[in-house]
Amino acid sequence: MPRKYDSRCPVARTLNVIGDRWAILILRDFFLQGPRRFQDFEPSLKGITPAMLSQRLKELEGHGVIESRLYAEHPPRRVYDLTEKGRELRPVLLAMKLWGERYTSARSQKHR
Amino acid sequence: MPRKYDSRCPVARTLNVIGDRWAILILRDFFLQGPRRFQDFEPSLKGITPAMLSQRLKELEGHGVIESRLYAEHPPRRVYDLTEKGRELRPVLLAMKLWGERYTSARSQKHR
Repeated sequence: MPRKYDSRCPVARTLNVIGDRWAILILRDFFLQGPRRFQDFEPSLKGITPAMLSQRLKELEGHGVIESRLYAEHPPRRVYDLTEKGRELRPVLLAMKLWGERYTSARSQKHR
Repeated sequence: MPRKYDSRCPVARTLNVIGDRWAILILRDFFLQGPRRFQDFEPSLKGITPAMLSQRLKELEGHGVIESRLYAEHPPRRVYDLTEKGRELRPVLLAMKLWGERYTSARSQKHR
């Protein structure tokens, strides 16, 4: 779980939900590509382990940002999607995208 | 340093700069309170160690998001402030603030 910060600050409270960068990249994939199964994340989240992905999905679902439903029972398989609360994070992701496009380069990142 | 992600994605590139939650809380303090000295961060960043704060400031300065100048020489003391590149992160912080105000509570955070 992310560490917990001073709950009087709404920015800190948001970071308690999406303060992990994997969480934000998982949300990005939902915004770009819609509902997803566990294995759909692998191509876009290079370096994440299945255990880490499983934990992040569980945390995001615990915070009510995503929801899942079974789509197969033998073996059990789930499909995940954003909730309304999760979709309302779009402005955060969009602001990050715009800043990244303007102020960082796909070639060199540091000391710019 | 934050881990590096696929540089083709502007969200991931932004996370390479501010993907650490301390970095975002440091930026919050600049937006709320303006130029700051090292010791000014202590009251609002509960739990950060001087070494961690020093490292985050150095990283943010390396990315050109903040800048510093000496305000005393004996002993050397610096004052930090946002650059224009840093000020342009305001929409990210603002979106986090608005979401936190709407979807999280100052009392209980989880499973909402």
